[in-house]
Amino acid sequence: MSYEEVLKIAARRGIFFKSSELYPNSPAGFWEYGPYGVRIKENFVNFLRKKLKEVDAIEIDGACIMPKEVFEASSHLKNFVDPIVECKQCKQVYRIDKLIEEKTGKPVPERLKKEEFEKLIKREKIRCPKCKGQFSEVKFFNLMFRVDVGVKGQECYLRPETCQAIFLDFKRVFKVMRRKLPCVVLQVGKSFRNEISPRQSLLRMREFYQAEVEVFFNPKTKKFPPIEKFKSFKLRFWEDGKVREISVEKALKNKEVSNELIAFFLAFIQNFYEELGFPREKLRLRKLKENEKAFYAKEAWDLEVLTSLGWVELVACNNRGDYDLKVHSKHSGEDLEVMDGEEKVLPHVFELSIGIDRSILSLLDLSFKVDKSRKLLSLKPIMAPVKLCVFPLVAKDGLPEKAKEVCSLLEDFDYVYEEKDSIGRRYYRYDEIGVPFAITIDHQSLEDDTVTLRDRDSTEQIRVKIKELPQILKKLLSCEVSFEELKGKLEK
Amino acid sequence: MSYEEVLKIAARRGIFFKSSELYPNSPAGFWEYGPYGVRIKENFVNFLRKKLKEVDAIEIDGACIMPKEVFEASSHLKNFVDPIVECKQCKQVYRIDKLIEEKTGKPVPERLKKEEFEKLIKREKIRCPKCKGQFSEVKFFNLMFRVDVGVKGQECYLRPETCQAIFLDFKRVFKVMRRKLPCVVLQVGKSFRNEISPRQSLLRMREFYQAEVEVFFNPKTKKFPPIEKFKSFKLRFWEDGKVREISVEKALKNKEVSNELIAFFLAFIQNFYEELGFPREKLRLRKLKENEKAFYAKEAWDLEVLTSLGWVELVACNNRGDYDLKVHSKHSGEDLEVMDGEEKVLPHVFELSIGIDRSILSLLDLSFKVDKSRKLLSLKPIMAPVKLCVFPLVAKDGLPEKAKEVCSLLEDFDYVYEEKDSIGRRYYRYDEIGVPFAITIDHQSLEDDTVTLRDRDSTEQIRVKIKELPQILKKLLSCEVSFEELKGKLEK
Repeated sequence: MSYEEVLKIAARRGIFFKSSELYPNSPAGFWEYGPYGVRIKENFVNFLRKKLKEVDAIEIDGACIMPKEVFEASSHLKNFVDPIVECKQCKQVYRIDKLIEEKTGKPVPERLKKEEFEKLIKREKIRCPKCKGQFSEVKFFNLMFRVDVGVKGQECYLRPETCQAIFLDFKRVFKVMRRKLPCVVLQVGKSFRNEISPRQSLLRMREFYQAEVEVFFNPKTKKFPPIEKFKSFKLRFWEDGKVREISVEKALKNKEVSNELIAFFLAFIQNFYEELGFPREKLRLRKLKENEKAFYAKEAWDLEVLTSLGWVELVACNNRGDYDLKVHSKHSGEDLEVMDGEEKVLPHVFELSIGIDRSILSLLDLSFKVDKSRKLLSLKPIMAPVKLCVFPLVAKDGLPEKAKEVCSLLEDFDYVYEEKDSIGRRYYRYDEIGVPFAITIDHQSLEDDTVTLRDRDSTEQIRVKIKELPQILKKLLSCEVSFEELKGKLEK
Repeated sequence: MSYEEVLKIAARRGIFFKSSELYPNSPAGFWEYGPYGVRIKENFVNFLRKKLKEVDAIEIDGACIMPKEVFEASSHLKNFVDPIVECKQCKQVYRIDKLIEEKTGKPVPERLKKEEFEKLIKREKIRCPKCKGQFSEVKFFNLMFRVDVGVKGQECYLRPETCQAIFLDFKRVFKVMRRKLPCVVLQVGKSFRNEISPRQSLLRMREFYQAEVEVFFNPKTKKFPPIEKFKSFKLRFWEDGKVREISVEKALKNKEVSNELIAFFLAFIQNFYEELGFPREKLRLRKLKENEKAFYAKEAWDLEVLTSLGWVELVACNNRGDYDLKVHSKHSGEDLEVMDGEEKVLPHVFELSIGIDRSILSLLDLSFKVDKSRKLLSLKPIMAPVKLCVFPLVAKDGLPEKAKEVCSLLEDFDYVYEEKDSIGRRYYRYDEIGVPFAITIDHQSLEDDTVTLRDRDSTEQIRVKIKELPQILKKLLSCEVSFEELKGKLEK
């Protein structure tokens, strides 16, 4: 049930809401981040950037509109399609693979042909779910949005993924940034897909944020020294309906992952989500079967999380081989090989394709809690849209003035100040937004220069000296110390 | 000449470069930020966010694709057009207003009719600049990119400016964020315009970054207390071909600016660019004449900067009145009034429409310097893509090890480490990228735990104790102390 609750909080508190909502005819699949949503998204992206510093990643930011040549080469023009049917009677359009899956309860293999779909429709006796009408023939609908550029209308498309620019720009940035292989390149930005049936708010949108990490490597290289850090890290592999935890070291020894570099990035991304506050026990890495993989993928894993909407794919981890550089090299006529020491090599690519919006939705879903009469988002400080509240207990008796003094000590912190409404209402309001700590200035503060510090999750409070606040808050917000530990210390 | 030099450095160092450049047929007007460009852009946006905290701004992040209803209401569908002609002979298409301006040396008024243009073409005897051919009739070309959404192809457009979402979302975010008027809302993101002739790289692109600040206010309100800060700030008004500096206080007294709120934001934005490192003497605020203003604008100013490409418009400052909320209210049927105290009011809007890419290009242009044999970007620390270099003088004798020790003290700083090439080449390389300070570890460092600290602009060096580095660098990078002052202090 938390998905519906999250939607309510998101609307009530302006985390996210439907785009162009004033106009009832606005198409589905477009959403806006409100003020708190923007901050949560920024937190996510900045934490990813910070973690990627460990592997010396570089970042680019390219155009969303790209010419048809790019997608001819990548084969999106031909292959980035969904099979659809139209009801002859009510004219409703459906993804036929989804209808077949619903009827049979079994997954439909990727890349079936038109005739194969039509055979299945006949065999399974599939009709329009709305009016029981019969379907037109199966068509393949390309999910890219076409955009005509210039007065003469040059055929271009909105990128359906951010990674193509990384492949196109790779050789330039590799050179100008004086890199060696392996070389990690990130791009964060919007991608666009004309989904047949967008659904579940941030989960399947037509315009969405991706962070794609492309790791360019020499396929001959077996070693990847940063792996040391993760040797004993436990990967959560999904197999035969359950999770099996296995150390990176062992997974490599068993050849369950094909090399150290790929093992590193699988551990990296699982660990990243754990550090963001995703409960470890709800994460899994699922190795894709042959008929599930993209056609260019040599090895593919999905990092998934169990939410109230079921398992959600957060990250597609693909060993794309040399597919991308090869096709762009062929289509453009440019040599995209680079030097790796003395060797000229066309790098292979391991990709982490991260869905930002669905990560945020999943985290909100998992962070939502009900505690008696209050609802809260139990976000880690790093993901909280605001880190602190400062409240005078009442808006009189000199308490607001004292509170302003406290604020002046908090210039380096991200806080909100509010004096309206009862203190209880204020606590509850910011619990819903996920603010981890609240500082309250009361009458005692005027006497002994102390304030109360309240923990969102436990609602427990401790008294601390105003002058010690910055130091204490720094430790709490960086999770160097927990509220409980702090409480223990202060009570000693 | 610095524009061409900036283009060269931008390509050589990966600051920005042409999009999809592998494919020669790629359309003009699309550019990519490379790794250093991404950081410069982030610096710009983050500094803007920081400064806007002073007025308690909130930020939203909405969809780029919006339905036709939005642009019917805003009148973009009807009015967001450029007048074009096609050469009957060579089929080249031109913006006819630009051709007339080139021929006559005089600005063509906005919103001329088809017949008026055709009269001017005849009178000024304007022919195709390429082949001297005659022109077809004048047409009006809409600059929005159309995008068809869904299987049935609902008519939508890529937003030509970011602000429409702010108007549409205003009432919701105003309420959920419990705001009062005036209320400042920011959006940063891509906008898209199908320019007839994109040119000068980041100056006129078809896909570009905007930061739009919409200030919603009650038109009856005369006072805006934050103005105190800027009372004696000198606005640089452009008039009759020269700049006249006038204090905010005086400009208000003379009624040269219509109210305190508008005066505040004019000062705010001029000051913002000064703090970013734009030379004050190259900035001007130009009040637009009646025939230059957008049709909805009650009062309009352009903040412009003098670069090697001439005067560049950085920010359009528009008093949009209640135009936007009124049209969206009318077209959607929703009441967009909000409460201001006891009064129900349809807010007016003052807008700062900031061109991010052109701001960056202008700053690079103005920061480019030649000093004997070296070229440098004299960026302020706040805008520098990297803040520090750490160089061992040579890659032997234990200097790299010592340098790593230094690095371990610099964890909170943004630095690059490099040991290849002569020290001179390394200095020059990062001078071009605009890195303000370089730390060099030499043989003396091994003896006395000191390093040299080099200033990019003067190339002067001072010796500082390693353990004092963090504290010294913090002051230098925040501009709390200048390198010269520091040198003076240390030499005492």
